[in-house]
Amino acid sequence: MLLHLSTWPEVETYLQSSRGIILPIGSTEQHGPTGLIGTDAICAEAIAKGVGETTQALVGPTINVGMALHHMAFPGSMSLRPSTLIAVIQDYLTSLTQAGFQRFFFINGHGGNIATLKAAFSETYHHLALLRIPGAEQVQCKVGNWFMCSSVYNLAKELYGLQEGSHATPSEVALTQYVHPEAIKKAPLSEKVASGYPIYGAADFRRHYPDGRMGSNPALATPTHGKQFYELAVKELSNTYLEFLKKGD
Amino acid sequence: MLLHLSTWPEVETYLQSSRGIILPIGSTEQHGPTGLIGTDAICAEAIAKGVGETTQALVGPTINVGMALHHMAFPGSMSLRPSTLIAVIQDYLTSLTQAGFQRFFFINGHGGNIATLKAAFSETYHHLALLRIPGAEQVQCKVGNWFMCSSVYNLAKELYGLQEGSHATPSEVALTQYVHPEAIKKAPLSEKVASGYPIYGAADFRRHYPDGRMGSNPALATPTHGKQFYELAVKELSNTYLEFLKKGD
Amino acid sequence: MLLHLSTWPEVETYLQSSRGIILPIGSTEQHGPTGLIGTDAICAEAIAKGVGETTQALVGPTINVGMALHHMAFPGSMSLRPSTLIAVIQDYLTSLTQAGFQRFFFINGHGGNIATLKAAFSETYHHLALLRIPGAEQVQCKVGNWFMCSSVYNLAKELYGLQEGSHATPSEVALTQYVHPEAIKKAPLSEKVASGYPIYGAADFRRHYPDGRMGSNPALATPTHGKQFYELAVKELSNTYLEFLKKGD
Amino acid sequence: MLLHLSTWPEVETYLQSSRGIILPIGSTEQHGPTGLIGTDAICAEAIAKGVGETTQALVGPTINVGMALHHMAFPGSMSLRPSTLIAVIQDYLTSLTQAGFQRFFFINGHGGNIATLKAAFSETYHHLALLRIPGAEQVQCKVGNWFMCSSVYNLAKELYGLQEGSHATPSEVALTQYVHPEAIKKAPLSEKVASGYPIYGAADFRRHYPDGRMGSNPALATPTHGKQFYELAVKELSNTYLEFLKKGD
Amino acid sequence: MLLHLSTWPEVETYLQSSRGIILPIGSTEQHGPTGLIGTDAICAEAIAKGVGETTQALVGPTINVGMALHHMAFPGSMSLRPSTLIAVIQDYLTSLTQAGFQRFFFINGHGGNIATLKAAFSETYHHLALLRIPGAEQVQCKVGNWFMCSSVYNLAKELYGLQEGSHATPSEVALTQYVHPEAIKKAPLSEKVASGYPIYGAADFRRHYPDGRMGSNPALATPTHGKQFYELAVKELSNTYLEFLKKGD
Amino acid sequence: MLLHLSTWPEVETYLQSSRGIILPIGSTEQHGPTGLIGTDAICAEAIAKGVGETTQALVGPTINVGMALHHMAFPGSMSLRPSTLIAVIQDYLTSLTQAGFQRFFFINGHGGNIATLKAAFSETYHHLALLRIPGAEQVQCKVGNWFMCSSVYNLAKELYGLQEGSHATPSEVALTQYVHPEAIKKAPLSEKVASGYPIYGAADFRRHYPDGRMGSNPALATPTHGKQFYELAVKELSNTYLEFLKKGD
Ligand code: NI
Ligand code: NI
Ligand code: NI
Ligand code: NI
Ligand code: NI
Ligand code: NI
Repeated sequence: MLLHLSTWPEVETYLQSSRGIILPIGSTEQHGPTGLIGTDAICAEAIAKGVGETTQALVGPTINVGMALHHMAFPGSMSLRPSTLIAVIQDYLTSLTQAGFQRFFFINGHGGNIATLKAAFSETYHHLALLRIPGAEQVQCKVGNWFMCSSVYNLAKELYGLQEGSHATPSEVALTQYVHPEAIKKAPLSEKVASGYPIYGAADFRRHYPDGRMGSNPALATPTHGKQFYELAVKELSNTYLEFLKKGD
Repeated sequence: MLLHLSTWPEVETYLQSSRGIILPIGSTEQHGPTGLIGTDAICAEAIAKGVGETTQALVGPTINVGMALHHMAFPGSMSLRPSTLIAVIQDYLTSLTQAGFQRFFFINGHGGNIATLKAAFSETYHHLALLRIPGAEQVQCKVGNWFMCSSVYNLAKELYGLQEGSHATPSEVALTQYVHPEAIKKAPLSEKVASGYPIYGAADFRRHYPDGRMGSNPALATPTHGKQFYELAVKELSNTYLEFLKKGD
Repeated sequence: MLLHLSTWPEVETYLQSSRGIILPIGSTEQHGPTGLIGTDAICAEAIAKGVGETTQALVGPTINVGMALHHMAFPGSMSLRPSTLIAVIQDYLTSLTQAGFQRFFFINGHGGNIATLKAAFSETYHHLALLRIPGAEQVQCKVGNWFMCSSVYNLAKELYGLQEGSHATPSEVALTQYVHPEAIKKAPLSEKVASGYPIYGAADFRRHYPDGRMGSNPALATPTHGKQFYELAVKELSNTYLEFLKKGD
Repeated sequence: MLLHLSTWPEVETYLQSSRGIILPIGSTEQHGPTGLIGTDAICAEAIAKGVGETTQALVGPTINVGMALHHMAFPGSMSLRPSTLIAVIQDYLTSLTQAGFQRFFFINGHGGNIATLKAAFSETYHHLALLRIPGAEQVQCKVGNWFMCSSVYNLAKELYGLQEGSHATPSEVALTQYVHPEAIKKAPLSEKVASGYPIYGAADFRRHYPDGRMGSNPALATPTHGKQFYELAVKELSNTYLEFLKKGD
Repeated sequence: MLLHLSTWPEVETYLQSSRGIILPIGSTEQHGPTGLIGTDAICAEAIAKGVGETTQALVGPTINVGMALHHMAFPGSMSLRPSTLIAVIQDYLTSLTQAGFQRFFFINGHGGNIATLKAAFSETYHHLALLRIPGAEQVQCKVGNWFMCSSVYNLAKELYGLQEGSHATPSEVALTQYVHPEAIKKAPLSEKVASGYPIYGAADFRRHYPDGRMGSNPALATPTHGKQFYELAVKELSNTYLEFLKKGD
Repeated sequence: MLLHLSTWPEVETYLQSSRGIILPIGSTEQHGPTGLIGTDAICAEAIAKGVGETTQALVGPTINVGMALHHMAFPGSMSLRPSTLIAVIQDYLTSLTQAGFQRFFFINGHGGNIATLKAAFSETYHHLALLRIPGAEQVQCKVGNWFMCSSVYNLAKELYGLQEGSHATPSEVALTQYVHPEAIKKAPLSEKVASGYPIYGAADFRRHYPDGRMGSNPALATPTHGKQFYELAVKELSNTYLEFLKKGD
């Protein structure tokens, strides 16, 4: 059940049986010469919809632009500053908590969002509690990173080994190929690809990762792989979500 | 050309022939008993894609949650505070200006966003200029409100007369029916509907507009109407965008 | 009744019969070669005082510096950033709401303030409601732009036709001449004057409007006209204010 | 020379001979049963105009609402939060520094503003320097508190002794009586008046200072005294301003 | 009793007999060629511990970095912006007020912190009251500047006369020598030392005070003096703290 | 070499041979019935000093209060909001970068700081780069969590097994016992201790972890263990720091 395709009376009804909502969050950032700039948002949104269908959960709108400041030296990348993203999350959860939601499950497509999301959750729990919004003390947030699901991780390792890398990975590219077969890109990829260098500022990132990839060979991706990743992630995160709802009781 | 379905080298190439980008902005808010909560985002995104195709323009990710604080008393509505939305717009445009973009055309689906967008543009011009980011002084922003296109307005008047109303309107509902025929909702709608009362806070809004509609009869909407609105809006806003690019020279 | 010329027990008494207050807001910005930098504040303050006398309403202190970032390339112009102005408005209304005020009528002399004021109202309704300040849900704000009063608009059209323009207009200059006859300025004005170009950043504004006027011929202004504008605006906005108080019941 | 009664070309000319500007800052707060709520703004504005005439300095618009959070339990009082006032000062000085101003002399009517003004100056020097705005390193700010002028202080001591008190003082009331003889208020004043208790929060303040006065007997004020205070303050602050301009060389 | 060396049950017990806490605040800034960069924090922390022992008061963690933007042109100096320091103080006091603390005595080692602390207290009283945190209206803050204790001041005058100066003073250097005899520094000090110039921005400060001292001769400092200053400050501030607790009743 | 025990000329000299600085960051939060509230700051500071001695690195002042909002239901706990901590880090690094520092190694004693630190680093790289502060693009930050050193982790596992837990752990308590043998606390500890429940808001935390411990048995701690942990952490983090400096070249 997608929030965007629901009416407010339907949401009112939904709240009678569940306090949970799934919020996809991605990023808008370079993904190497062949990866889509929307990769992280596309993956998060597709998987969130799948999890929503599997678990009958409401799925909110996708946060398309996340924390990707280190990718800013590549054209087309967009980012919120962490402090802005914290404000966004706080506003989202304030809105939804006032309506009665209490379990927020962020399905995340981008590693760079994780730290800021965690910071935002802390800030929001505090904010809601200080304001004594009814239900504030019951609010719980959780991040589900699809690319860190053990089933996903294992398949990626099996299919790609070390060529999975850590950004513009074949697994995420495969998933976008499955969701958007009309947008499969080809471009020459140097065999040698930088890896292992930590992430600092944007200019430094581009100096060390000149084509945007981090240790990955996205040429290995196929739409069929993508379907496999999609299904594994949906299954695993559906279980995670259901346990999250239960535990919170 | 969708930014999310492009690679960074494609964006780099695009920037050699155009400095313009289209940014859809909607809202996540109640649209009466039958209107979709995502109505404003769905309309903005669909039309933006159409304009992008017509004009060969790059279309960025949709801002799904806008300034809808007055709708907060209806469950499922979400909003940024105006100061948060200003920060979001500033971050978006700082990212894109650094990459070389200079013409930002926001295709907007929600009246409540207009004031904050205008404020955000002023704040951003100033911010970019103070930082002396290359190209800052050439940056120009423009809002295109699809529902205020004269062709759209005239058709709505012709089809619905006064029953168009001003929120949860048959025209916007029709457009969502065209885009999402699988999500056409039915619900009893009182014949009498509040209208003409100004917008203040959220509780006050719900007191005066108890089912969320403002003077509208969305039961008049049909997917066929929606297609007409879509085509008119795409045509008119495509012209607006092309003139915006030219004038800016 | 001017707040600045009242004592707190007088305000306490006033609140027993009215919850309304008038807040003049202007700007400090270039108004062409002959227009006063304080034009917008002078007009708003004078008219607000007139409306206060006519309606027995309390008139608060004038906000002298508004949102005029686009005028910053002309010396003597001053501006708040929109996010600062939002904070200012929120602080003003938080103070006054705590004292029992609930109807805030901003008499505005500057088009550039309108969008930010609207954004600020939304932010403030939300802020006050989240804090559950007593009376928060009854708070209502309204902007009365004296230059957009229909009676003012019609007289300006009659007297000046197209030479009214849209900034440094003869009507606003006339009003300042009426209020400050000791400060009537003379300077050569080119016959040709730029007009019709949209407002973006400050440097761009000055490039397109080199002497600061936007399509106007302020040489047509006379103090006698100013008196007429003053009286029309006071009359029309007094009615607006009284209706605002009533409707809010 | 008042900025509000000047044109931008006049300011441009002024800047060729001086980099200095005077900015009056007051407050909008209770001043006891007979003191005007605008006392601090009225005094600061009147004296600033006098200093401007004496020294040929440009005088900017008055900041009418300052930092008066401790007066909030009395109706009609208004305040900015310190962090808002810092943002306001920063915006003012950023505007004026970009135009070429470098010496900012705040003529202040309210003790409660002093700390925040000092904080704001530090924040602004840093802000302007980080942005490397031309002239940023030459920017200097100074506060002139008219009520702390030694000549003013001595006269108040001579005329009122201990009955001068520290808020709603006869000296400031006298000055407003001189400036606004039409607004001289009468009200019974208890002979006993609280004094010596420090300032904390607003509710605490009103508990300890129930009628708003702090140790003062404003019934001693006369318009003739007010004229004397006015003239002493103008003279002393004019010298202070001229020395400030010189020293800064 | 040091908060950092206590357990939470010990704090719970403490709160049954006292609502007071001492918070040392210093700075991290140049103190001339021989003064320690931590001088202000070292002095504040040492004295705060002494006062805590004398009065059985709880002593919180030291704020090591304060408002020292004007020292930024000397390497090793660190500063918060005033608006950041306000946020820090607000967060500290919100935490502690929620636990039941109501009297906050800041033992301060740096003149540059005073204005921002005062601003922060105002902002915090307001913040806590708006949130209606239990006990908010009883919260009281006070700054005790050890270097402004009359006993300290008199001894400094007696020992050093005018060579005390106002920054990198022999008295504060002496105190650090007493606390950290292992870190007594030697360096040539010009006999002539700048003094009397006001503080503006960082570059301007260094231009006028090239070695960082303001009118002082820290070569006069001895650890024995330091012990004397320490004892005087502890004694005087202990009395101040105890009176502060009493008066607040 | 401690920044607080250095002079600015010594820092100037240091910068000729190294661009690195170590910044200890802890927390002020409950650590169970026997753990010190300052545990995380004490550990971070002690280890940072040790690493500074081992590597000849400059060690800055300790950030005593971190991100511990989830501990707020226990008296004596203090916390910054994440957005405040981001501002603090940004201010620290802006100060130090302007002086020429480029490698910032945070020795961290508190898991709750990690996410916000990472967010702060991203925000700061971006901030410094936008301002084009010289050296901004060379700035690199790194967190070294002493409790996550593999040598520390292994010893804790060996000594305590599962009774190490995850908060108020015997390892961190041991380390404080080594540093502060005068402050070893005794209190009855229930044998059963909660564990495995995720961290959400403060009230929820206390409901699930009623005495503050998370799965730990701090009664196992001894000062001798503490010495071992100290030495392992210093050794391992010294290597980490030296590699960090090298890699950055
Ligand atoms: Ni990705
Ligand atoms: Ni809509
Ligand atoms: Ni105007
Ligand atoms: Ni006063
Ligand atoms: Ni000092
Ligand atoms: Ni710990």
